[in-house]
Amino acid sequence: MDKLHIVKLGGGLLEDSNATATALASFHALSGHKILVHGGGSQASVLCKKLGIETKMHNGRRITDDDALDVAVMVYAGLANKTVVAGLQKLGTNAIGVSGADANLIQANKRPVQDIDYGWAGDISSVNTASLKAFLSIGLSPVFCAITHDQNGQLLNTNADTIAATVASALAADYKVYLHYCFGHAGVLKDIKDENSVIPTIRVNEVDELHHKGIIADGMLPKLQNAVMALHHGVQAVTIEKPETVHEGQALKTTVIE
Amino acid sequence: MDKLHIVKLGGGLLEDSNATATALASFHALSGHKILVHGGGSQASVLCKKLGIETKMHNGRRITDDDALDVAVMVYAGLANKTVVAGLQKLGTNAIGVSGADANLIQANKRPVQDIDYGWAGDISSVNTASLKAFLSIGLSPVFCAITHDQNGQLLNTNADTIAATVASALAADYKVYLHYCFGHAGVLKDIKDENSVIPTIRVNEVDELHHKGIIADGMLPKLQNAVMALHHGVQAVTIEKPETVHEGQALKTTVIE
Repeated sequence: MDKLHIVKLGGGLLEDSNATATALASFHALSGHKILVHGGGSQASVLCKKLGIETKMHNGRRITDDDALDVAVMVYAGLANKTVVAGLQKLGTNAIGVSGADANLIQANKRPVQDIDYGWAGDISSVNTASLKAFLSIGLSPVFCAITHDQNGQLLNTNADTIAATVASALAADYKVYLHYCFGHAGVLKDIKDENSVIPTIRVNEVDELHHKGIIADGMLPKLQNAVMALHHGVQAVTIEKPETVHEGQALKTTVIE
Repeated sequence: MDKLHIVKLGGGLLEDSNATATALASFHALSGHKILVHGGGSQASVLCKKLGIETKMHNGRRITDDDALDVAVMVYAGLANKTVVAGLQKLGTNAIGVSGADANLIQANKRPVQDIDYGWAGDISSVNTASLKAFLSIGLSPVFCAITHDQNGQLLNTNADTIAATVASALAADYKVYLHYCFGHAGVLKDIKDENSVIPTIRVNEVDELHHKGIIADGMLPKLQNAVMALHHGVQAVTIEKPETVHEGQALKTTVIE
């Protein structure tokens, strides 16, 4: 099987032009099949603020009302996605920017209302691997933003970490998939103030314990739960790292293992 | 050769949800290969106004400064494009939304500064027909927004009428191309107040005369000049019409002929 690298770039990296350039150069340097997934959360919050739209949150999760969805689609699928695609084209990577609606790549359902209505938040129901394989086979590198659709005309806001893990899982039968969660730190840190405190390996069965001990922050937990899901579906390796190390297997990073 | 319909939807049609639904249903009803191109001009102006960004114009042409480009990318490539794509997916047309940067489909150059600097306005230099043919061959319908790139990382704002005519011209060697300019009227009207005054045919060599006589409005002239260009490049037919008539050859519409 061919190798396939799936790189998720945290939205924070796209707020700084130098960090963006470094991240795109690192992605470009990866050989073979590759897919990029990007966030863009705080850029959307900035636009909401400018437009006087209140950013609604519940327990750290965003509530996506009509106005917030429009802003998410404008920022994620518009400005962030096309800036990344144009930057990759400049380097010579033949990127194609997509949401889940494009080519029907990712179908999702509005999250059911239980205690709280998260609005237009979408939970993924399926991934169209045939179209993704067709794109990869003609040398295209899909660039996913964090927008999906319900096949009934409704766009939905879907967590970018989850998109990366779900696409990785769906393609694990066809490629040797390597999933990279990239952000501003070298890995999961024992001490958030010390970049040298990277935990080199985290076993799937250690995640809950590390969280209970407070070593894994609340924000890191969903990323690790996604990593566990991807490994269970046959993804070769999941790493948490800076973009600079995606093509260096032995660099300082956190590897999640079964 | 296979038939290929290229339908350009005026931005005005996307401002009204009923008009959008009718336009998308008409596009969906077309059989065979098809490409959609959409504008979105006044939606961008509305967002500019909300953000306190001044819309700069010169002789009826927009001047695209940094802020205006960001808004154009958010509205055209983001909200307008993904709304159209999700709407077509609902109907069962396998749409894929693209800018010129995606898959390097349309390369452009910043318009040279002569008397006036139009900012980030892009004049098309080439169309990547190989990738477009690959998409059409696997049953995808590309949906173009009015954004291109210069292959050096810069996104550019390009007139949607020109994109439609240039893509039609580039594919005329591979398909029997039918180019449809759709807007809110049944065709070019002799009397703008009378929908029954449609001019059924306009010959290429009549365009200048009709403009001088004031029958063709300034806003219609670039559309007709694009029509002439497309016919010169071997496009089978160019029509100016409502979206409802794209699949009815004999309906009331304006046909531009050599």
